[in-house]
Amino acid sequence: MAPEYYDFGPYKIHHSSVFYTNDLCFAFVNLRPAVPGHVLICPKREVKRVADLTAEEITDLWMISQKVGRQLESYHKASSLTFCIQDGPQAGQSVPHVHIHILPRMSRDYENNDDIYEDINKKEKELKEKLEVDKERKDRSLEEMALEADEYRKFII
Amino acid sequence: MAPEYYDFGPYKIHHSSVFYTNDLCFAFVNLRPAVPGHVLICPKREVKRVADLTAEEITDLWMISQKVGRQLESYHKASSLTFCIQDGPQAGQSVPHVHIHILPRMSRDYENNDDIYEDINKKEKELKEKLEVDKERKDRSLEEMALEADEYRKFII
Repeated sequence: MAPEYYDFGPYKIHHSSVFYTNDLCFAFVNLRPAVPGHVLICPKREVKRVADLTAEEITDLWMISQKVGRQLESYHKASSLTFCIQDGPQAGQSVPHVHIHILPRMSRDYENNDDIYEDINKKEKELKEKLEVDKERKDRSLEEMALEADEYRKFII
Repeated sequence: MAPEYYDFGPYKIHHSSVFYTNDLCFAFVNLRPAVPGHVLICPKREVKRVADLTAEEITDLWMISQKVGRQLESYHKASSLTFCIQDGPQAGQSVPHVHIHILPRMSRDYENNDDIYEDINKKEKELKEKLEVDKERKDRSLEEMALEADEYRKFII
């Protein structure tokens, strides 16, 4: 049976935000997406750095990222994808649990193509702050996130 | 026997710049590094998009990236890593052959942590221009690149 919550560093991700899983990893919608379809992929085990992942986790992580990326690109009528991992605090990692950012990209989504990274880091910091708040009280946008996850669940199979 | 050149989209990477390989992938030093130790990891097969990689290629690509990243971080006395894939032209991909950027990161390497991405894209465009030029005449910095690759070959095993 699927758990009610998934661990994301010290935080909990409600199962309604998780739209795809495989043996060792899960994909969830983002509280603070930088572009439509900006999602995160995580190993289920709480692992801080890429170097700490097992071979099986790496394989599962990228099999799910490949599949989710391809299908979100198509769903959002995008034409490219940005994949990135901020592996450690000096790379901008806010939540100490390995996660891959996937962002569907299209022409002119940002005036400067690379401004997206500034946004990823800004949103990641906001996500962390929000998750801190949510430890105390229920996230107001849980329903909205569940709707997006429901939508993705329909076509990512 | 190792080939003299490795394909990188329409370009050729001289074997002296390649410091590590596994069955399906190779790691090479960058003509235009954004930070010390900024290297690229590629599948040997010319594949444009992440979606086109086989399961075996994805596994090999990330096994080599994990190993190379960990050892370059240590060698360059860094404390984090940036991994990123510009998967398609709208994500900033200049050379149409899947490649992972790995960049050792340390405190205050950039005034704004995310400025590195602007640099990655700028350097990637320069790399492409340089490779275009190199189709005609020999790269002047081939020796310098070979020295860096030699150094990495010593400890990435």
